[in-house]
Amino acid sequence: MPTYKAPLRDMRFVMDEVFDFATGYETHGLTDATPDMVSAILEESAKFAGEVLAPLNRSGDEEGCHIDDGVVTTPKGFKEAYQQYVDNGWGSMTGPVEYGGQGLPASLGLVVAEMTASANYAWSMYPGLSQGCSAAIRAHGSPEQKKLYLNKLVPGTWTGSMCLTEPHCGTDLGLTKTRAVPREDGTYEITGTKIFISCGEHDFAENIVHLVLAKLPDAPAGTKGISLFIVPKFLPDANGEVGERNGVKCGSLEHKMGIKASATCVLNFDGATGFLIGEINKGLNCMFTMMNHARLGTGMQGLCHGEASYQTAIAYAKDRLQMRALSGPAAPDKPADPIIVHPDVRRMLLTMKGFNEGNRALAYYTAQLLDKAHYSKDESVRANAEDQLAFLTPICKAFMTETGLEVTNHGMQIFGGHGYIREWGQEQQMRDCRISLLYEGTNGIQALDLLGRKVLMSQGKMQRAFTKEVHQFCQANEGHATLGEYVTKLNKLNAEWGELTQKIAMRSMQNREEVGAAAMDFLMYSGYVTLAFFWLKMAVAAQATLDAGTSEEDFYKAKLATQEFYFKRLLPRARAHVEALEAGADSLMQMTAEQF
Amino acid sequence: MPTYKAPLRDMRFVMDEVFDFATGYETHGLTDATPDMVSAILEESAKFAGEVLAPLNRSGDEEGCHIDDGVVTTPKGFKEAYQQYVDNGWGSMTGPVEYGGQGLPASLGLVVAEMTASANYAWSMYPGLSQGCSAAIRAHGSPEQKKLYLNKLVPGTWTGSMCLTEPHCGTDLGLTKTRAVPREDGTYEITGTKIFISCGEHDFAENIVHLVLAKLPDAPAGTKGISLFIVPKFLPDANGEVGERNGVKCGSLEHKMGIKASATCVLNFDGATGFLIGEINKGLNCMFTMMNHARLGTGMQGLCHGEASYQTAIAYAKDRLQMRALSGPAAPDKPADPIIVHPDVRRMLLTMKGFNEGNRALAYYTAQLLDKAHYSKDESVRANAEDQLAFLTPICKAFMTETGLEVTNHGMQIFGGHGYIREWGQEQQMRDCRISLLYEGTNGIQALDLLGRKVLMSQGKMQRAFTKEVHQFCQANEGHATLGEYVTKLNKLNAEWGELTQKIAMRSMQNREEVGAAAMDFLMYSGYVTLAFFWLKMAVAAQATLDAGTSEEDFYKAKLATQEFYFKRLLPRARAHVEALEAGADSLMQMTAEQF
Repeated sequence: MPTYKAPLRDMRFVMDEVFDFATGYETHGLTDATPDMVSAILEESAKFAGEVLAPLNRSGDEEGCHIDDGVVTTPKGFKEAYQQYVDNGWGSMTGPVEYGGQGLPASLGLVVAEMTASANYAWSMYPGLSQGCSAAIRAHGSPEQKKLYLNKLVPGTWTGSMCLTEPHCGTDLGLTKTRAVPREDGTYEITGTKIFISCGEHDFAENIVHLVLAKLPDAPAGTKGISLFIVPKFLPDANGEVGERNGVKCGSLEHKMGIKASATCVLNFDGATGFLIGEINKGLNCMFTMMNHARLGTGMQGLCHGEASYQTAIAYAKDRLQMRALSGPAAPDKPADPIIVHPDVRRMLLTMKGFNEGNRALAYYTAQLLDKAHYSKDESVRANAEDQLAFLTPICKAFMTETGLEVTNHGMQIFGGHGYIREWGQEQQMRDCRISLLYEGTNGIQALDLLGRKVLMSQGKMQRAFTKEVHQFCQANEGHATLGEYVTKLNKLNAEWGELTQKIAMRSMQNREEVGAAAMDFLMYSGYVTLAFFWLKMAVAAQATLDAGTSEEDFYKAKLATQEFYFKRLLPRARAHVEALEAGADSLMQMTAEQF
Repeated sequence: MPTYKAPLRDMRFVMDEVFDFATGYETHGLTDATPDMVSAILEESAKFAGEVLAPLNRSGDEEGCHIDDGVVTTPKGFKEAYQQYVDNGWGSMTGPVEYGGQGLPASLGLVVAEMTASANYAWSMYPGLSQGCSAAIRAHGSPEQKKLYLNKLVPGTWTGSMCLTEPHCGTDLGLTKTRAVPREDGTYEITGTKIFISCGEHDFAENIVHLVLAKLPDAPAGTKGISLFIVPKFLPDANGEVGERNGVKCGSLEHKMGIKASATCVLNFDGATGFLIGEINKGLNCMFTMMNHARLGTGMQGLCHGEASYQTAIAYAKDRLQMRALSGPAAPDKPADPIIVHPDVRRMLLTMKGFNEGNRALAYYTAQLLDKAHYSKDESVRANAEDQLAFLTPICKAFMTETGLEVTNHGMQIFGGHGYIREWGQEQQMRDCRISLLYEGTNGIQALDLLGRKVLMSQGKMQRAFTKEVHQFCQANEGHATLGEYVTKLNKLNAEWGELTQKIAMRSMQNREEVGAAAMDFLMYSGYVTLAFFWLKMAVAAQATLDAGTSEEDFYKAKLATQEFYFKRLLPRARAHVEALEAGADSLMQMTAEQF
């Protein structure tokens, strides 16, 4: 049976030795996040994830959620685990102090979220959605709304949901049909059907705060006519306690490929009372506050399933005896060798390591940017962090999930036929991971966001905010004694990255389809180069420690070997993406719809 | 709801216009396979697949198989569909006339199998396993065994199974523990546990013929001590009719990711009566007769799920309205444009087409080789066909399933969030397809088979049997008016293919791990080049028809556009595989097991 043990040593390597989170906390005046406090939080979180959440992962998948006349029951043990999570203050960790939060750094929240989500992704969605909901209310709510809702959402007493999608519109929110009719008392009457609402109904908490996109009767067409509303399941009374039941009901649960323990709801709003949040017709801006949060979280999903899959796979690869090593028996006393002796099994394991640890470095770097953007006292640091975040968010969302799915696929393959059997949990990791390429904006949408909105619309500014970091790193490490060849390689790719942008920009002036035609390959190229940067950063740190002498030689040598593997066996794929995108739009657009 | 409509026009294009099956049938004296007969069979088979099997595909997945004290019940409608299949003579189509078969060409059998398997893969496994079982008995059985069993298996009155895997051994059959103790009457007493036995127990037929690998008490260690036994579920009586129940019972069914309507059984042999087939300790040779058959069938699985997924996806892409085309509204009268206008949706659709139609051409070429190997009167033709078959079989099995899985993944992605919902059937295609990378020898094993056994052990002879075909085609089409640049490209890749083999052969003399380290990338490279060859053959045929004038311009232009897409956007991946394999074994082997 699979278990999850938080990879604290790997996590601390990135936090402490690659990015130096501690100095960041000092600089930003995050004085509560002392080294001792950080260690205690990581240890306790690892325990909670491994001992409370992980044991519920497979039973949650087998049992799923159930609905009876609009009442949703989550799998056995789920709501008790949530109560424990709330009681122990995990939910409020990074929340603002004025609403009952602990004000700890966003970056630490992300590291802790990695553990809960790796242990049990479906469970982790319930608190995850609340975080996005809180962020939107904090950014756009009135003082009264903040007081009322954040005091409940931040500690986790209530949970949240995001209600965007409708049967006929997912990507294209301009087609929203849900109506919001103003009432005389300043509230709105919300009517419509929302689908695919994660954690839209459940038994975790006494109330659920739905954030709902809807259109006023006289709203302009398209996305310019969308407003955002708070629609609580139970209307709060004068004291902010749960009052009257609101007119929103779960009509059914979706039957899905995976994340079966996460309730995916059809929500019917039938004249429900809604409260406008932010300005009329500016709902999409508010929604993006939640979406950006959710997109980073979804990117993490790729890492989390990948890590869980790797842990089960590496244990199996060391244990399962099958065939002899090509170079002669490695375990002559046993009937066969453990399969980790076989080059192709190692190819899969190293691919898993290469993506997982690279993705973790990318995620933690992004987490550090969140800290900078939230807490830095230097405006130019904040602005630069915002630019880099804007640029890296679609890469995190799409590249980490594409590669995460590949990792879980290898994690099954290493098991042979046993990987296909539910008992081992490897197929669940792949099924659960698969959604991450779809929700919070499909990966194709992320690619358009990256190339169209972020790169081209900012005239390359957001891209340069990041490539400058890469360039500076390459300059600082030029001629590195052992890693010099890789520095040269990265520097070239980094330069090519900018050139590709230029080329696409030129072509798109002739033909707007060129942006869409290049987008996905551009995103994947960006991901491979980004991870090359982080792998090399990790290798430089590892080499320095080895040079200085360490009792953990194996740990650091593994980092160097995985970096080499990444450069030699994964990074070449970047070339295929360049060739593909240089084929241009014609190769995609010449066929008529009828010819398909 | 998804439906399946056999793509007869595409199938006929490959059969008639690319490979000219009809002339082959004439040459081989397969006089029953007249053009009229072939047409009638294809039409009727398309009807059976679309009307009888396809409607049972999703209900079969939802319902699954059930077991009660060793008795397995298949999903509703499954056994009735099998009875119809048998009654209509589909099972016996390619079987030998002397055992009740119709003696039709193997190639036609494969084309028909594409339809049944695309409509309902899980269902198609039951007759599929019988075919492999028949082939082994036909090749290695005694005259009495052939008479007794083939007369039942060929018409489908009884079905078959292949019992290889045990809990501790899948790939490594040398570790087989199942025992066969000789009895005085010449039979054997078979005792042991077999797992993952597809269609090992069910309610389709009155008897099941298990072919079981087991070891005699004094057998040599490893694969040289394995023998093969026929172990019928019911022992035939003197008249060959079902008699006494044999000592084999289904202990349980596996819970799997997909192909849930296919019963995957644990079979317990408890002193069951077995009949030796072939020679003692030569069981593995006999097994390979079944395995090669099964490997081609498993390769087809990649195509079949891919085709089914494409059909659902293309209909959705033309119907689903979401966002506007970047170049301006394509359907201004509608609230949004059909998503087929978006370049990234086309990228996915064309990737699906590129792999599906390329894989179909590869499969049908292989089918034609089966005809040559079975029926040609010219010994050198037979020998060449056998060499090519040996070389192409692992490519079919692994490349067609790897790309098939990718195709089903795109087929989900095109649906956005709806792809993750069971109702649409797209996620089932991906789950069902996933097993094909694992069973009948994992794809890693196929890669070793290709590079180690087929290419290097034959000193390149088997590879050259195929690359010569490619070379001749390139010579014949050198300087082609419109496709010349692609001919040049293919010719270069074909030459490089041989050079890669040389390089790996040299390196493997220094270090045997080099073969394992290069195998998977070599296989994938081989697949990409092989499909490039078939795409160019299709393009040359399409261009010739367009040049001559045709009323089906759209059809042929789509072939040319997809060939161009394949060369420009998929074939570049071959380069990444070359770079990866040139990294050599060190990049995989330098880490100790402990460092992982």
